[in-house]
Amino acid sequence: MEATFGMDGLMMDQPLLVKRLLWRAEHVFGTAEVVTRVPDGYDHCTYAGVAHRVRRLAGALRGLGVAPGDRVATLAWNTRHHLEAYFAVPGIGAVLHTANHRLSPPQLAYTINHAGDRAVLVDPDLVPLLEAISDELTTVRDVIVLGPLPAGTTLRSVHSYEELLAAAEPIDELPEFDETTAAALCYTSGTTGDPKGVVYSHRSTVLHALVLCAKDSVEVSVHERFLLATPMSHVNAWGMPYACVLQGATLLLPGVHPTPDDLVQIVHDQRPTTAVGAVTVGSLMREAWQRSGGARRLDSLRRLWLGGQAPPAAETAWWARTNATIVVNGWGMTELSPLGTFCSVATTPEELADPAILERQSRQGPPLPLVEMRIVDETGTELPWDGESVGELEVRAPWAASGYFRDPRTVGSHRDGWLRTGDVSVFHPDGSMHVKDRCKDLIKSGGEWISSVELENALMAHPSVREAVVVAVPDPTWVERPLACVETHVDVPAEELLAHLAARFPRFWVPDRVVFVRQIPKTSVGKFDKKRIRAELAAGALDSH
Amino acid sequence: MEATFGMDGLMMDQPLLVKRLLWRAEHVFGTAEVVTRVPDGYDHCTYAGVAHRVRRLAGALRGLGVAPGDRVATLAWNTRHHLEAYFAVPGIGAVLHTANHRLSPPQLAYTINHAGDRAVLVDPDLVPLLEAISDELTTVRDVIVLGPLPAGTTLRSVHSYEELLAAAEPIDELPEFDETTAAALCYTSGTTGDPKGVVYSHRSTVLHALVLCAKDSVEVSVHERFLLATPMSHVNAWGMPYACVLQGATLLLPGVHPTPDDLVQIVHDQRPTTAVGAVTVGSLMREAWQRSGGARRLDSLRRLWLGGQAPPAAETAWWARTNATIVVNGWGMTELSPLGTFCSVATTPEELADPAILERQSRQGPPLPLVEMRIVDETGTELPWDGESVGELEVRAPWAASGYFRDPRTVGSHRDGWLRTGDVSVFHPDGSMHVKDRCKDLIKSGGEWISSVELENALMAHPSVREAVVVAVPDPTWVERPLACVETHVDVPAEELLAHLAARFPRFWVPDRVVFVRQIPKTSVGKFDKKRIRAELAAGALDSH
Repeated sequence: MEATFGMDGLMMDQPLLVKRLLWRAEHVFGTAEVVTRVPDGYDHCTYAGVAHRVRRLAGALRGLGVAPGDRVATLAWNTRHHLEAYFAVPGIGAVLHTANHRLSPPQLAYTINHAGDRAVLVDPDLVPLLEAISDELTTVRDVIVLGPLPAGTTLRSVHSYEELLAAAEPIDELPEFDETTAAALCYTSGTTGDPKGVVYSHRSTVLHALVLCAKDSVEVSVHERFLLATPMSHVNAWGMPYACVLQGATLLLPGVHPTPDDLVQIVHDQRPTTAVGAVTVGSLMREAWQRSGGARRLDSLRRLWLGGQAPPAAETAWWARTNATIVVNGWGMTELSPLGTFCSVATTPEELADPAILERQSRQGPPLPLVEMRIVDETGTELPWDGESVGELEVRAPWAASGYFRDPRTVGSHRDGWLRTGDVSVFHPDGSMHVKDRCKDLIKSGGEWISSVELENALMAHPSVREAVVVAVPDPTWVERPLACVETHVDVPAEELLAHLAARFPRFWVPDRVVFVRQIPKTSVGKFDKKRIRAELAAGALDSH
Repeated sequence: MEATFGMDGLMMDQPLLVKRLLWRAEHVFGTAEVVTRVPDGYDHCTYAGVAHRVRRLAGALRGLGVAPGDRVATLAWNTRHHLEAYFAVPGIGAVLHTANHRLSPPQLAYTINHAGDRAVLVDPDLVPLLEAISDELTTVRDVIVLGPLPAGTTLRSVHSYEELLAAAEPIDELPEFDETTAAALCYTSGTTGDPKGVVYSHRSTVLHALVLCAKDSVEVSVHERFLLATPMSHVNAWGMPYACVLQGATLLLPGVHPTPDDLVQIVHDQRPTTAVGAVTVGSLMREAWQRSGGARRLDSLRRLWLGGQAPPAAETAWWARTNATIVVNGWGMTELSPLGTFCSVATTPEELADPAILERQSRQGPPLPLVEMRIVDETGTELPWDGESVGELEVRAPWAASGYFRDPRTVGSHRDGWLRTGDVSVFHPDGSMHVKDRCKDLIKSGGEWISSVELENALMAHPSVREAVVVAVPDPTWVERPLACVETHVDVPAEELLAHLAARFPRFWVPDRVVFVRQIPKTSVGKFDKKRIRAELAAGALDSH
């Protein structure tokens, strides 16, 4: 390109920094609130108050010697303190590592060491977990407890959060730097091998937040109250803390170790308009509400955004019918900040009584603005968006990972600049994407593909079934055959479930066997743990109860 | 900042290019439509069709030798052809100069020469305008007529658009380049001195488009039909073509030289949900509808976005009452792509019957995401957002100009990295901004400020007044005194108007004199031309009819 006569660079070079989101909350929405569930009720704090404390925390971290580029871990629940760290740590150019306390202790220690965390902010009730792995930690120098200091802790260099903040020199003007600077670090849930680190930049974080605010996307707005049940310890709680701060939406944080019953109580007390959580959270809330006789009101919920996997149609139909709540979903992954698509077909709950709309609502929806997608066959050839062609989903976006942090598994994670998602999808001619399976979960039987996800969704639509997982088991004739693991509400004969599937799918899709289990094993982020199920099946450890 | 252990740059370096907006329209919203008013009805084209033609136009321009960085002008109405140029010209790294045919011929020639336009795309009915200045043009090599070639034209190197496209080698993959590359060039309307050139980058264009889609902003959506009455020849038609393409919104383009009557007919025929235009367009549409006896239906319009100046409260109230349309407004300037704030207080038209809500709706609203604002006094000291302090509005945003194209007036246009807007504003504690006046239009009488805009709005709320302008005139005692120029529907005594003001403002605000004029002079973009009014007053040329 020629030098364009001094034409380039006549727009402001205003880097997209996380602190700009906070600027808006403080100046425009200073009186909007963050509400956190605490033991004796609710803690209320305005965004102006949060911004004030962010500047103190930023000063406190600098005071401890945290430098730009240093990693600072959080081991924490969804609380206002955690939100303060979301802004203070990147605000001084350090990198927020939201460590996942749901990982196994060795995996947790692995991620903290791999990240090279310089300091850890830890919730009081998670101190024992940190103590248990502290001998393994090689880089942590300071521990900040987000509450009263535990008596007799074995941790060294422990600080009280409130004391640190009170003594800190606040940083009134957070620094400017390049927008490609790392802001946050999150590890995948590690269903295969060690967790992999994904590094979000300030730029990717801001752009992703902006897209969550777009119409036909999550539509974060000052007029909404969001209950954030998805953990802030994983993928930035789907970017919602950043988007809510940007738009001045009221944030409702469920605090320490919320039970489904606690979540129902928060909805009753705080009247969120949207709740956000894993698919399991939706069904657990429903069950808690049903168990308690339906006394508490859930009817403020216009929307329930369930993620991590596709919400079963039966779940969506229940919420629409019983509570006039529209279950929405999207598709994403840790490597994608996480959101890539969003589905909002139904505009009123009544529409979901129409099976055609229910079906379209269960898809993952069109790519979000600035997200480009394609499906490819095994040779990398692009496939048409015809509603039939099935291929591996590949993604490009300003908030998609181009590699993993210090990880040789970066090799092979991309093809021609596209991120390989490992998901198998169809695109419909209307631009909406429908995930059929994980590549590795697809079952190939007699040379034909069988979608484990479609079988699972059909099983979970059966009134007796609580959750269901379908995995491949080796078969001498067909190479692989599907097997269903089912957790039920009430006893039901396997034959009835198989007949239920036979009415909906080709005969060769119907599993040969149903295993009834007490509880479907889940990963640290609440997904069906198919790796463990396969291992237990192979070891003969998983069997009908 | 230290080298952060290879942490930066682990997100994709996906530049924000205008072509990415088109990717989404083509892949996700391929069947959504652009509808253009043509002599015999309406031209319909899908976004897939537009994308196809964009690639042909890109190839045609390259075939003519248009290189990256070259400027290509359009002299055109709001049509699909113009939309194609919006994407094809930046798509190949050239710069779209939307020349403004409403400028005077010498000013138009000045802008084309100043831009150094290499080619001009011109609508057939504007060919005579181009012919009239063609001897002055020093850089134009090719002229492309967006319709039948005019017989006997004096222009050289003239091409027919459709023939060029038919013969072109389409560019299937538009090139990648840095997102700070210039995409478009627009000149200010030049109320003082020669027009100044503002250069939008790909980055600024994409970010601005994204923010138009945000909730609580314009909320561009696939479910909406936008009538774009604001000209595509000025400030990218407020960025709406880019935002509509990104979200798959239906675009309704009024074509060649639409009259207010034509606009009403389009609303009746095409049922837009939102119309977008200057404040004058709103009142002209209302009058055209009233003149024709109200037979045509306007009731598809949920929103009417009126810009360029604050919509008079009386206008807003009429649309809400008569048509259940909410008039929304914002604040912007050519230097800001243009949008900086947006006001959407009322969510139902009924609310606008409440004077308090009508008043809040008449403000310009809170800063949009990523826009930072402050008000400062004459010494540059920041003033509080207390609903009372009045100061010059200054702006920072990723889509704000850092300078003008080849123009010494860049000096003095900024203060400490903030763009000086020349507007005088108040910020309310709720974060909403209210423009009080242009700095140069404020009247200083006896040491006290008088807002010409507030007086004008009050006059225009009087049932007999069509439009009103208030300017300062020299006064031996008070230095300046306000004078009102009024255009009326029906005769009304000056005393009645002054009493109307006296009931609303301090006594010293009430103008000493009212001049009744046949028509308030306007600038090329439809704003009150106060410069001309002052000059005519000084020359004694403006007086009561």
